Amino acid sequence: MPSLKEVIEESDTPGGRAFDLCIQALIVLSLITFSVETLPNLSESAQSWLRAFEIGSVIAFTVEYLLRVYVAAPKRAYVVSFFGIIDLLSILPFYIGLGIDLRSIRSFRLLRLFRIFKIARYSAAIRRFHRAIDIAKEEIILFLCATVILLFLAAVGIHHFESELQPQEFGSVFHCLWWAVATLTTVGYGDVYPITVGGRIFTFFMLLIGLGVISVPAGLVASALAKAGQLEDAGTAIDAD
Amino acid sequence: MPSLKEVIEESDTPGGRAFDLCIQALIVLSLITFSVETLPNLSESAQSWLRAFEIGSVIAFTVEYLLRVYVAAPKRAYVVSFFGIIDLLSILPFYIGLGIDLRSIRSFRLLRLFRIFKIARYSAAIRRFHRAIDIAKEEIILFLCATVILLFLAAVGIHHFESELQPQEFGSVFHCLWWAVATLTTVGYGDVYPITVGGRIFTFFMLLIGLGVISVPAGLVASALAKAGQLEDAGTAIDAD
Amino acid sequence: MPSLKEVIEESDTPGGRAFDLCIQALIVLSLITFSVETLPNLSESAQSWLRAFEIGSVIAFTVEYLLRVYVAAPKRAYVVSFFGIIDLLSILPFYIGLGIDLRSIRSFRLLRLFRIFKIARYSAAIRRFHRAIDIAKEEIILFLCATVILLFLAAVGIHHFESELQPQEFGSVFHCLWWAVATLTTVGYGDVYPITVGGRIFTFFMLLIGLGVISVPAGLVASALAKAGQLEDAGTAIDAD
Amino acid sequence: MPSLKEVIEESDTPGGRAFDLCIQALIVLSLITFSVETLPNLSESAQSWLRAFEIGSVIAFTVEYLLRVYVAAPKRAYVVSFFGIIDLLSILPFYIGLGIDLRSIRSFRLLRLFRIFKIARYSAAIRRFHRAIDIAKEEIILFLCATVILLFLAAVGIHHFESELQPQEFGSVFHCLWWAVATLTTVGYGDVYPITVGGRIFTFFMLLIGLGVISVPAGLVASALAKAGQLEDAGTAIDAD
Repeated sequence: MPSLKEVIEESDTPGGRAFDLCIQALIVLSLITFSVETLPNLSESAQSWLRAFEIGSVIAFTVEYLLRVYVAAPKRAYVVSFFGIIDLLSILPFYIGLGIDLRSIRSFRLLRLFRIFKIARYSAAIRRFHRAIDIAKEEIILFLCATVILLFLAAVGIHHFESELQPQEFGSVFHCLWWAVATLTTVGYGDVYPITVGGRIFTFFMLLIGLGVISVPAGLVASALAKAGQLEDAGTAIDAD
Repeated sequence: MPSLKEVIEESDTPGGRAFDLCIQALIVLSLITFSVETLPNLSESAQSWLRAFEIGSVIAFTVEYLLRVYVAAPKRAYVVSFFGIIDLLSILPFYIGLGIDLRSIRSFRLLRLFRIFKIARYSAAIRRFHRAIDIAKEEIILFLCATVILLFLAAVGIHHFESELQPQEFGSVFHCLWWAVATLTTVGYGDVYPITVGGRIFTFFMLLIGLGVISVPAGLVASALAKAGQLEDAGTAIDAD
Repeated sequence: MPSLKEVIEESDTPGGRAFDLCIQALIVLSLITFSVETLPNLSESAQSWLRAFEIGSVIAFTVEYLLRVYVAAPKRAYVVSFFGIIDLLSILPFYIGLGIDLRSIRSFRLLRLFRIFKIARYSAAIRRFHRAIDIAKEEIILFLCATVILLFLAAVGIHHFESELQPQEFGSVFHCLWWAVATLTTVGYGDVYPITVGGRIFTFFMLLIGLGVISVPAGLVASALAKAGQLEDAGTAIDAD
Repeated sequence: MPSLKEVIEESDTPGGRAFDLCIQALIVLSLITFSVETLPNLSESAQSWLRAFEIGSVIAFTVEYLLRVYVAAPKRAYVVSFFGIIDLLSILPFYIGLGIDLRSIRSFRLLRLFRIFKIARYSAAIRRFHRAIDIAKEEIILFLCATVILLFLAAVGIHHFESELQPQEFGSVFHCLWWAVATLTTVGYGDVYPITVGGRIFTFFMLLIGLGVISVPAGLVASALAKAGQLEDAGTAIDAD
């Protein structure tokens, strides 16, 4: 019979896999009920069902948390670890909410979303992604800075061309930043767009530069991922020797 | 004179190539008539022509299916193979429709689309694509999961910012998911877009992350394809020795 | 003093470079006047100026054509070459238009655009692009086929979901193809978009697949270009030995 | 105690780092006040605060400029260097504006944006980006030319199909260029889109080609960046020997 420690901390034994699957299913269900709660015109009975499920899931996550603390070799190590804090944060709001009435504070509900990070525990592939980010970190930061500068310049430029004809949409550089975001990411909602000849020519040049700046990080991540995969394969080969 | 087996199963003999071209032309014509049938206000004579062509093409596909069963070395092998099932599925609906009146069930017509998969038989390049998917499978699944989580977080976030001012478009997390899909894929229809300052800043940050997540799989597929091509070339070189 | 042949056919002598620059300037000017002619409400004097410039440029291109025929070693070789035909096609419409009145045939004017291909003569980089296309030809064709099949399936699917509620926009599979093109390329004009829950979920899945298919060819071209550059550099290195 | 020269010109000593951070903070604050000034309906007191900050920052940048001139080994070298000119251009407009009243010339304010280039001094990663542009320069120019030609052809083509039905939006080739920019970059604002069958089929083919042309440069920059990174690493390895 597997020990309690094995069931909770390992994921390659039958017991451990079953425990992990239960927790994952509970997380996904808990996120779905979170979404259902936002539906307008919910019936009273549906609301009480959702409330009951929420209480049930918090109890389950609390039991999980206490068990993880119980089996952790140095108990402190788990409590102060990344996942220890995440596990606590995803149940704490509920208990605080029992004492004080927090239903009025809408954003308080969002704290329940910390549960989504609990899923990260189960993904081995996230390690490789971390390594890829490490490889391309410098360039990604450079391109994020370039993106911010480009957005700012685009906003200032379009403000210069369009602010007189469309004071509502392009009234200040801050208004124009929304246009810059929607345009340079090529989303193009169509709520704001230039109508002057100068503004359109300026848009063309910003897009020429912008496309080459904003879509580069994706290419960097992709090639870094390929590199990280090769390093990992090489690492496995060495481990296997 | 080539044997019947050669004409039907091989594609590098003159007879086989002619047979393949006929079947392919019939598939394409059959898909075009499928599209034409959806046109509103078709004249009676056009409808009867389309019906006649449909009957003709089903007869041709049936003959093809029977011939393929006839020439297959172990007949069972073809019947239970992927293309055997596809070939059957693309004619079966017609014969079932003769017995029961299925015209009322609109989605039943869609089964005819299985014919499109019959084309896959003729594409040698699909093998390479399969191999590329195999190489990048792990990362593609990771990125699909990341996409789903990102869409969920984007929907929850925008719901927080916009649900009060635009209850019609951002009323629940499910409504917001549609915005998240249209925005993070950069389609940006313009039917729903944030109007609050908070929502717009949130959109900017989601797009910064989203562009780097959603467009990465394409890069992975492209580099995996290049790798698969090299493996294939190497394989051919070894075969040629 | 450089010979006439050198001036016309070579581009690394001072005379040849000057001749090339004149022709290129004339092509660009000729394309700009083509665009200006489409402006509505042109004054009579502007129209006569444009007409005069058109006659002048045709005369210049005719002289260029005759000179190229004159200096070509086997005259036939130039006349039947790709650029020989392009050079002829870009002046021929004018002379035919003198005999018959072709002003009514609007599309006839478009033949003047053949001049744009004359520019290709001067671009050494196009050779490398040709080589890149050669390397990635097979995959590009595969992805073009995949794009067409995907657009067709997307159109059939959205027709199934939306045709009842929006008969105007999604009335037939052909109407839906326009939606499919605008959506899967992420242009998203916003003139047609799904409004049913089923149609929106379907759009999400088509976009998930579509983004991975439609943006792959660009990655293939980019990596093939890099490869072609390496081959060329290697070729130059061997030539230099 | 560090010398004045070290504080100003070097960035790896504590004093130098503090000096650099002050200047950077001042640049960012100065750009934010630039944006705030464009807000409509600013109160009088806010305007006087902004004016005071502008005077303060110009004084600070002037002191920085004079210090940099003072410590530069050959004073001339700094004054005529790229950053010397940028530093001068970002304060000069203010002093000229004191003599002549330039408030009426709106575009004059834009000269203050030269300060953004002062940030470039502090980014070591820009060197690598420069090297990447050098590597891919030839292809990037080729693709920019291809983009311009493609936009022109797209504009001429759509003008042919749509000008009769939508004379307002597609009246001349110049009007159509705006459609071409918004479509081929996949922004798709939705202010102009084809409505004829011919125009829509033409749009499809232009997008097929356009996506493969316009998104290639980003791929080229990404792969060139990876290459530049390798060269730099190799260079560092050699330096370290």
